[in-house]
Amino acid sequence: MFFFPFLKQSKMSEYIEHDADGISVGLVKKKSYTYAEPPNEMILESGTRLGPVTIAYETYGELNKDKSNAVLICHALSGDSHVAGYYSKDDPKPGWWDIMVGPDKGIDTNKYFVICSNILGSCMGSTGPCTYNPKTVKPYGLDFPVVTIGDMVKAQRALLDHLGIKKILTVIGGSIGGMQVLEWCAQYPEMVVSAIPLASTTKHSALAIAFHEVARQAIMADPNWNDGNYYSGEKPKLGLAVARMIGHITYLSDESMRIKFGRRLQNKNDFSFNFDADFQVESYLRYQGSKFVERFDANSFLYITKTADYYDLERQHGSGSAVEAFSKARAKFLVVSFTSDWLYPTYQSKSMVQAMKKNGLDVSFCEIEAQWGHDAFLLPSKRLTDLIKGFLERVYREI
Amino acid sequence: MFFFPFLKQSKMSEYIEHDADGISVGLVKKKSYTYAEPPNEMILESGTRLGPVTIAYETYGELNKDKSNAVLICHALSGDSHVAGYYSKDDPKPGWWDIMVGPDKGIDTNKYFVICSNILGSCMGSTGPCTYNPKTVKPYGLDFPVVTIGDMVKAQRALLDHLGIKKILTVIGGSIGGMQVLEWCAQYPEMVVSAIPLASTTKHSALAIAFHEVARQAIMADPNWNDGNYYSGEKPKLGLAVARMIGHITYLSDESMRIKFGRRLQNKNDFSFNFDADFQVESYLRYQGSKFVERFDANSFLYITKTADYYDLERQHGSGSAVEAFSKARAKFLVVSFTSDWLYPTYQSKSMVQAMKKNGLDVSFCEIEAQWGHDAFLLPSKRLTDLIKGFLERVYREI
Repeated sequence: MFFFPFLKQSKMSEYIEHDADGISVGLVKKKSYTYAEPPNEMILESGTRLGPVTIAYETYGELNKDKSNAVLICHALSGDSHVAGYYSKDDPKPGWWDIMVGPDKGIDTNKYFVICSNILGSCMGSTGPCTYNPKTVKPYGLDFPVVTIGDMVKAQRALLDHLGIKKILTVIGGSIGGMQVLEWCAQYPEMVVSAIPLASTTKHSALAIAFHEVARQAIMADPNWNDGNYYSGEKPKLGLAVARMIGHITYLSDESMRIKFGRRLQNKNDFSFNFDADFQVESYLRYQGSKFVERFDANSFLYITKTADYYDLERQHGSGSAVEAFSKARAKFLVVSFTSDWLYPTYQSKSMVQAMKKNGLDVSFCEIEAQWGHDAFLLPSKRLTDLIKGFLERVYREI
Repeated sequence: MFFFPFLKQSKMSEYIEHDADGISVGLVKKKSYTYAEPPNEMILESGTRLGPVTIAYETYGELNKDKSNAVLICHALSGDSHVAGYYSKDDPKPGWWDIMVGPDKGIDTNKYFVICSNILGSCMGSTGPCTYNPKTVKPYGLDFPVVTIGDMVKAQRALLDHLGIKKILTVIGGSIGGMQVLEWCAQYPEMVVSAIPLASTTKHSALAIAFHEVARQAIMADPNWNDGNYYSGEKPKLGLAVARMIGHITYLSDESMRIKFGRRLQNKNDFSFNFDADFQVESYLRYQGSKFVERFDANSFLYITKTADYYDLERQHGSGSAVEAFSKARAKFLVVSFTSDWLYPTYQSKSMVQAMKKNGLDVSFCEIEAQWGHDAFLLPSKRLTDLIKGFLERVYREI
């Protein structure tokens, strides 16, 4: 077996954040698969060849006999394959979607075999700009090719082939993860039984591109970035921190920031009258920025944001038409947006739903009332959990 | 006379952008007044002393005999005293609000005596971090004190005293200019006959503070910033450019960016598959960033954004209550917001209108349908021009 069996034990509850029932998938192990088919490389959408390609992944639950219970989770910009559970008993926190994935949870690991892999171009175990270029025996840096959402999905497909899975019961993800979900339905329609794009879009908007571009400029303005060659020296921490701070603002909303921070001051009763962090929102952003640089690679940030900016399902699969882009899809869809998400606003989800419906597809759409902005898809929500659980039960029953 | 008479001549029309009638105030001259009352300094809200203080300003039109036709225009973050007209016949473009200020325009210089001064802390002629500290005979840099909107208004008040003006017919401004408008009404209520805050707020929101903080971090992350001591060396151009790019995104809107840029590519039919500017929106932002660093001082950007973040009319003048903050105001108000402005959204204007009304003040409020985001207050709008023109005529008639 490739997966470490989950431990349904209450001991783990002490490590669990936001976990309603205290049951986690337990201890898990990161695995990896190196895509090494002859000629040992992938041909990317850009035409460039890349290889060998390693894909880090984790699995939870057990694959059933007829291999019909596989759920593929696609992560967003800064996520990884560690979607649920703990690596050890000392692990301070579980995977990034532990509130949704586990025994009896929204994505029930008692029923489904869950797979999550780190996206191509990232820095969490899969091949990306910080991994070794076999030709130079140095980290790729900017020699890494710009990959597309299509390339990321192609690598995931290779992993599923390796696991012997021919059909995915559900492919699910939010934000850039949602783009991968849509891409799966267009690129490998015969493999996808159902799909759940959350807080996502068929094409990145000018506003979203603008935020990504400014974040990239912040990284590239850092002299330590050094055209991407920083792996043996100082890292571009200040630039990456600014980039992350920009991101964090876009993941929240005016309302959520008003509730979470308002104009509350940081440990003081008055203004500093200097450039210290006076307001709690300033401290929060500085903290988020400084924390991020410890775990994420600046070049991966550049590559993945560019990948998202390039994403245009309609251009790639429909000659500019959303209706045509979904014409080969066979999946049943659950599309979810959030009222306060201004990065991937509801109108973008509605527009994909319309295109799906024009193809006669089975589509459920829900706009969830939420004040937390784009981040809402990652936060505890009974509504979202119930929607996903119910949808999964239906599609599993209807196979 | 302190002002250069405007030239009502059609020759100027060739230099005019967005000028419906082709008539500008013509050639103007920047002047300055040094606030040098004994003991030759201002006492700031922070308690710090600053002096002498020079205020750069321009005037347009003529002050009438009873000095009742003065209109004070307050500029926003990166503006200056050059609100209309040209400095020379070779000047490529007029002042920043030439579409609104001039003969027969919204603010009619045939009728009103218009004054606009550069805010304290800026870098366009008034005392700020880039001007000389008399104590060190070097630019202030970070020795410049953090000033408040109240301090900016206090300096404007000194200028009006110098000009012999005891009553302002109207004080008008958008964004940070609107904060100065509100501050005038609270700090010097007896001097303000009417007031027009546009796209503004009584207190800076967490979202707006967050964007400012990230922009400041971008500047301070630039090693050329050097703790504010860069006046004799390389300037922190890359950091300031990123800061300006962040600002530009917040001045637009999802809708305006979709219309203005969409996903249109820059001079190419396909993606570059590298980190060049692929999309027009990226080129636009890079261009805006690079243009800004030629004309603006990075330290002034830090100081003015901090000033805006500190702004809280309710805290300063109403012990936390907006109603109390307007209790001394006597002005007639025209409050204007714009539908797509997400930086200073309409609810913030509505909330100040409510507080004004609870004080029995004469208030007109208008939310203008506009897709251009926060920038809308600076763009040509017949609706806005008519509103301002009509309001000014009424208050002038009713004196």
